[in-house]
Amino acid sequence: MIVVRTIAELRTARRGLPGPVGFFPTLGFMHQGHLSLVEQARRECASVVASIFVNPTQFGPNQDFHRYPRDEERDLAMLAQAGVDLAVLPTVEEMYPGGDATRVRVAGLSEVLEGERRPGHFDGVTTVVAKLFNLVQPDRAYFGRKDAQQVLVIERMVRDLHFPVTIVRCPTVREPDGLACSSRNVYLTEEQRAQARSLSAALRAAEAAFAAGERDAGRLRQLARDQIESQPLASIDYLSLAGEETLHELHGRLEVPALLSLMVSFGDTHLIDNTTLAP
Amino acid sequence: MIVVRTIAELRTARRGLPGPVGFFPTLGFMHQGHLSLVEQARRECASVVASIFVNPTQFGPNQDFHRYPRDEERDLAMLAQAGVDLAVLPTVEEMYPGGDATRVRVAGLSEVLEGERRPGHFDGVTTVVAKLFNLVQPDRAYFGRKDAQQVLVIERMVRDLHFPVTIVRCPTVREPDGLACSSRNVYLTEEQRAQARSLSAALRAAEAAFAAGERDAGRLRQLARDQIESQPLASIDYLSLAGEETLHELHGRLEVPALLSLMVSFGDTHLIDNTTLAP
Repeated sequence: MIVVRTIAELRTARRGLPGPVGFFPTLGFMHQGHLSLVEQARRECASVVASIFVNPTQFGPNQDFHRYPRDEERDLAMLAQAGVDLAVLPTVEEMYPGGDATRVRVAGLSEVLEGERRPGHFDGVTTVVAKLFNLVQPDRAYFGRKDAQQVLVIERMVRDLHFPVTIVRCPTVREPDGLACSSRNVYLTEEQRAQARSLSAALRAAEAAFAAGERDAGRLRQLARDQIESQPLASIDYLSLAGEETLHELHGRLEVPALLSLMVSFGDTHLIDNTTLAP
Repeated sequence: MIVVRTIAELRTARRGLPGPVGFFPTLGFMHQGHLSLVEQARRECASVVASIFVNPTQFGPNQDFHRYPRDEERDLAMLAQAGVDLAVLPTVEEMYPGGDATRVRVAGLSEVLEGERRPGHFDGVTTVVAKLFNLVQPDRAYFGRKDAQQVLVIERMVRDLHFPVTIVRCPTVREPDGLACSSRNVYLTEEQRAQARSLSAALRAAEAAFAAGERDAGRLRQLARDQIESQPLASIDYLSLAGEETLHELHGRLEVPALLSLMVSFGDTHLIDNTTLAP
């Protein structure tokens, strides 16, 4: 595995990669979710590129940029083991030469749900992903469905700006008890960790009711909400049942594919998860 | 010359072009300024691509989008004659599928001078140029120095988003009497056209004083201003002497390369021009 830290090194290394090139951008602190993206990329591409970059512009001033977990040595070992061909670990100065005057923004989709709780978050995401796409020039880019809104925002950016990249949505990888894999899970205390099972339990409860014929948006939301509210350490940031493509909140009877998504806090730790309910 | 109107046709045609590929985006209604870009691109590239697209998002609601001069037949004949290999004439629907939610914005540089008089103008420019770069994938892109602020904003976008494109600044082409070539010159009445010579006269007056040793920013601006104010039909929108890279207005003695730029109205027609004064 080639490891590069500057844009000059990246451009040189990129020229030597046979195509099609698969890419997955990460914030590092790898878990099974990341590794499943590598596996899928390896099946579909001749070369796989991964980036590790804790992007400051997607964190708000009071968010966890500085404490975000980092373990470069372990990450590189995992990526090499998984069969990544090129790992890109740029500095903030390389990625934001002369500051952050230039932003890419997807209005609408970026402003609801997680975007409403974390103003500017998705602007930071779309900006850094645009930079990385221009640098890595992948044919296919892999994103986990756990970050459903992120995938939607990036797909919209790619379509609108005509990036010559295919976005691949990959299934959420879960711990044995159902908790979605996330680098932020390490923040949880043992007690919080146990109660965090309620996120996937909420999704499963709504899925089961949906499978049994329940179509009322309000009742489906309430079933999910009940699971979270039964956990004393859990606090709901949002719990949404919205049009899967528009993220407009749904009311009454479900007629279109819906994204059931939620953000739940345990202390300072915000976890997200989601599922799709398709009539 | 291949002419394409859809993105699918463009992607197919692009694959057949030998590199390096030179590109110049235009609003059409070609003049000698455009043709000089083709000439330079032909000298430096194996293939030359031109786009003609009157981009709605760079016009304000009360600006000249609908009356902007168009002559597709003449444009295509001129481009073919000049040796362009591929002409791209997309529709608004092809360029903005599903609306204009996604924008690329260069804060700061986009907000002064022409950006202050035309709010949102440069956001429209950077957005459409980002789209076109992703579609055409040029190695080099050619822009006229007449639109000095536009070149600066695009260079900043390219650097910040790491587009793999070299921006080439091309000299302003002028009519025999000094007026910079512009598609908007056709809007001028004969009387306005005569007085429009004052734009280049203003630049030449400042250049002459500068060459003779004048370094005071205020006096240099005033010399230029005097030329415009001597013309009864001319109205100054702005007249700026600013740092060439920052566009911050300069005061006192010039110590850094300065951009002397101006926008002058004749009725509803806004003309721009500029020169660089380098100590």
